[in-house]
Amino acid sequence: MTDSSSDRIAQALRTWISTAPAGAQLPSTRALAAEYEAGPVTVQQALRALAVQGLIETRPGVGAFVRSIRTVRPNDYGWQTAALGSPENRMPPPTAVLRTTPNDVIALHSGYPVRELLPERLVRSAMTRTARGDTVLTQAPAAGLPELQAWFAAELGEGTPAGLAAPGAGDVIVLPGSQAGLSTLFRTLVGTGQPMLIESPTYWGAILAAAQVGVRLIPVPSGPHGPDPDDIDRAFAQTGARAFYAQPNFANPNGAQWSPERAGAVLDIVRERGAFLIEDDWAHDFGITSSSTPLAARDDTGHVVYLRSLTKSVSPAIRVAGLVARGPARDRILADTQSQSMYVSGALQAAALDVVTQPAWRTHLRSLRQQLGSRRDLLIDALREHAPSAHLESVPAGGLNLWLRLPDDTDLVRFTRECEAQRVIVAAGDSWFPAEPPGRYVRLNYSGPNPGAFPEAAEIIGRVLAG
Amino acid sequence: MTDSSSDRIAQALRTWISTAPAGAQLPSTRALAAEYEAGPVTVQQALRALAVQGLIETRPGVGAFVRSIRTVRPNDYGWQTAALGSPENRMPPPTAVLRTTPNDVIALHSGYPVRELLPERLVRSAMTRTARGDTVLTQAPAAGLPELQAWFAAELGEGTPAGLAAPGAGDVIVLPGSQAGLSTLFRTLVGTGQPMLIESPTYWGAILAAAQVGVRLIPVPSGPHGPDPDDIDRAFAQTGARAFYAQPNFANPNGAQWSPERAGAVLDIVRERGAFLIEDDWAHDFGITSSSTPLAARDDTGHVVYLRSLTKSVSPAIRVAGLVARGPARDRILADTQSQSMYVSGALQAAALDVVTQPAWRTHLRSLRQQLGSRRDLLIDALREHAPSAHLESVPAGGLNLWLRLPDDTDLVRFTRECEAQRVIVAAGDSWFPAEPPGRYVRLNYSGPNPGAFPEAAEIIGRVLAG
Repeated sequence: MTDSSSDRIAQALRTWISTAPAGAQLPSTRALAAEYEAGPVTVQQALRALAVQGLIETRPGVGAFVRSIRTVRPNDYGWQTAALGSPENRMPPPTAVLRTTPNDVIALHSGYPVRELLPERLVRSAMTRTARGDTVLTQAPAAGLPELQAWFAAELGEGTPAGLAAPGAGDVIVLPGSQAGLSTLFRTLVGTGQPMLIESPTYWGAILAAAQVGVRLIPVPSGPHGPDPDDIDRAFAQTGARAFYAQPNFANPNGAQWSPERAGAVLDIVRERGAFLIEDDWAHDFGITSSSTPLAARDDTGHVVYLRSLTKSVSPAIRVAGLVARGPARDRILADTQSQSMYVSGALQAAALDVVTQPAWRTHLRSLRQQLGSRRDLLIDALREHAPSAHLESVPAGGLNLWLRLPDDTDLVRFTRECEAQRVIVAAGDSWFPAEPPGRYVRLNYSGPNPGAFPEAAEIIGRVLAG
Repeated sequence: MTDSSSDRIAQALRTWISTAPAGAQLPSTRALAAEYEAGPVTVQQALRALAVQGLIETRPGVGAFVRSIRTVRPNDYGWQTAALGSPENRMPPPTAVLRTTPNDVIALHSGYPVRELLPERLVRSAMTRTARGDTVLTQAPAAGLPELQAWFAAELGEGTPAGLAAPGAGDVIVLPGSQAGLSTLFRTLVGTGQPMLIESPTYWGAILAAAQVGVRLIPVPSGPHGPDPDDIDRAFAQTGARAFYAQPNFANPNGAQWSPERAGAVLDIVRERGAFLIEDDWAHDFGITSSSTPLAARDDTGHVVYLRSLTKSVSPAIRVAGLVARGPARDRILADTQSQSMYVSGALQAAALDVVTQPAWRTHLRSLRQQLGSRRDLLIDALREHAPSAHLESVPAGGLNLWLRLPDDTDLVRFTRECEAQRVIVAAGDSWFPAEPPGRYVRLNYSGPNPGAFPEAAEIIGRVLAG
């Protein structure tokens, strides 16, 4: 009896509350008891139920009040659907690469090296020194700190042959990460609706940035030695494209490195076609049995626009990249960069420069080279033993990834899900293709946490493939 | 005799060098002496002249070699003109605001507060603490550090009246500065070629970001109390625009603050028109006789998208801004942000959060309020005394700027140039107008260096105006 009475009162009050403003005071227990012809205990039971449901709050000795909470009135954002319309440019679905995962899994999906491969001591002391300096309180120049510009130019200039003009500090624009550089380059050198050649497979972030700008991608197939110059030339001829995005050294995902001859052939084509080569030297610091030899160092005609990030090799928190461009293209890129981000934090620039100019940075890079090599070989050996049907087209001479082709009848969605059920996270290869994938691929990053678990991961991958 | 002989040899060698590859060895001194029928001293004099001019380098005991230098062959970047074509969207000319100037001038042009107005001690200790923490070595989540998201939400929620749902941490996206936010918002909520209402005058960086995206700007005149709601409604009706960019608190440049009634009227219009209000709360921390009261706090229907930067009040090196958006708009904004910048440095986010959660931050803001007030009044008094023809439409209740109307016959280019010749840098007002300026304006920033020189600056401005 009492229960149903209190239910009845609670129901009536719920209706009252739904139209009352937040903070409104409910009638007193005595008044409610009179109104609903019930005892004070029954009324208080009803109020407690409403309080538990979060509809009211009671302040002892004062009374009960309507609470302002989200659940009372779910907002209707339907009007936004009309205001937003369809997106101008469809974005590809999100990839697994940026996922954060719990500690008890074997994570082979990430895009960033694990902390133990970073120059932790250098980064911490650089940030501490930066905290004491001027850059932490001042605005940096639009194109970057001059000393950091000079460093990027000098690094690239190391590869410039005699007889060619090496890049100067004034050719460099410092960016808040290379992703910002990709967006800017696709916007300024290509443009919405315009065609751009791109390796296939290639970096998913470039595919994403191109989608955002609305660039029309022209895929050029790329194998372990890079794309075929004839394919590139044909694609330029057929589409009238004026730009080609590529990673000539340790390409993500397949680790391809172009030979000097191939690089020369591509440079010749790009020049003949009056086109830009957008060179993404993402793995400059991740050579293993080879070193990155940027094409941009061999070009002083402004055809190669060069992008190098320090985020992956210095620290994911030091979002600093250098862009090298010559001629009027640089002016247009700088104008876009300014309107997009104004300037890059001088503190981050100073910290990055501090790290890479310490003698210990070279030592770190040498040790990193060895560690990446051991990790790579450990994962390759384990896969060869336990997952022989996962085919590695070539052993990458640098970079962070193995690119494996799985049997053609593999259901990739099911494969990644089953691996994950056994606590091994892998990245399905589809995200790295600008169009339909020509096969079933997975990318395994060997710079993640806990390489000791690589054999176990390979066993699980092998079992899932076999099952 | 000897001189002219060596000149003749140098001239001949110069011709030879101009076609020789870099690194090519010159004939020996003996061979040259024979060829030009001159003594070895004359030949060496010619070689020294060429070395001084940077055309050759001599290696003692080895010989002389053609140097590879830029001046030998200026690069021809003409091909880029064809490859780049006309820019898709014309950018406005660069403004004076970002100029760096020598120390011996009176700089009233800048957009950023001078270092002595920043919480220097807090920033340095926050960066030092950050250098010891985890964020300096890890990747931050795409939408930002959860604690910083929660802080931005709570700050905005302080102004939310009872009965409305306050924003949650999940509604916040952390950005690498508010300029990045403007680009993203104009791209996602408006789009290329689409109309957007904008106050006139307004922040030049917003005009720049809109130009980059190719947004069609619909100026709405704004006076000391903000724009007239009837004008806004008419502009929505005539153009079919679905967005309005505004700075309702301490607008840049004219310091306008909307009354609660006007804010309510604009909110009603925006809702009726099914449109977004893009609220740029750039001066949230720069109240003087009033405080910023964001409209976004009074809206839980997703119509107001809110942007607040910490860059100007914490430090120009801490490029961190918070964006608050609700409903599907937030998802589209986040997707664009990711494709543009991936994520914001966790170290900068942690440092920003450290600063604004110290008790001393509140103390700093109180002292800042007083200092800005004194600086503002000092400059106003000096201008009233020395430059009475520079008309201040209203005393701003917050912000960093005075917006002065000069006599209509003022030649603005000449005025700024003559001020500059007398070492006073002012910003011509034209940059703040999305279309033709309706009068001659200058913006004077009273948060720059050396307020003691304000009277002198006012005297010079008065003299230039009178002369």
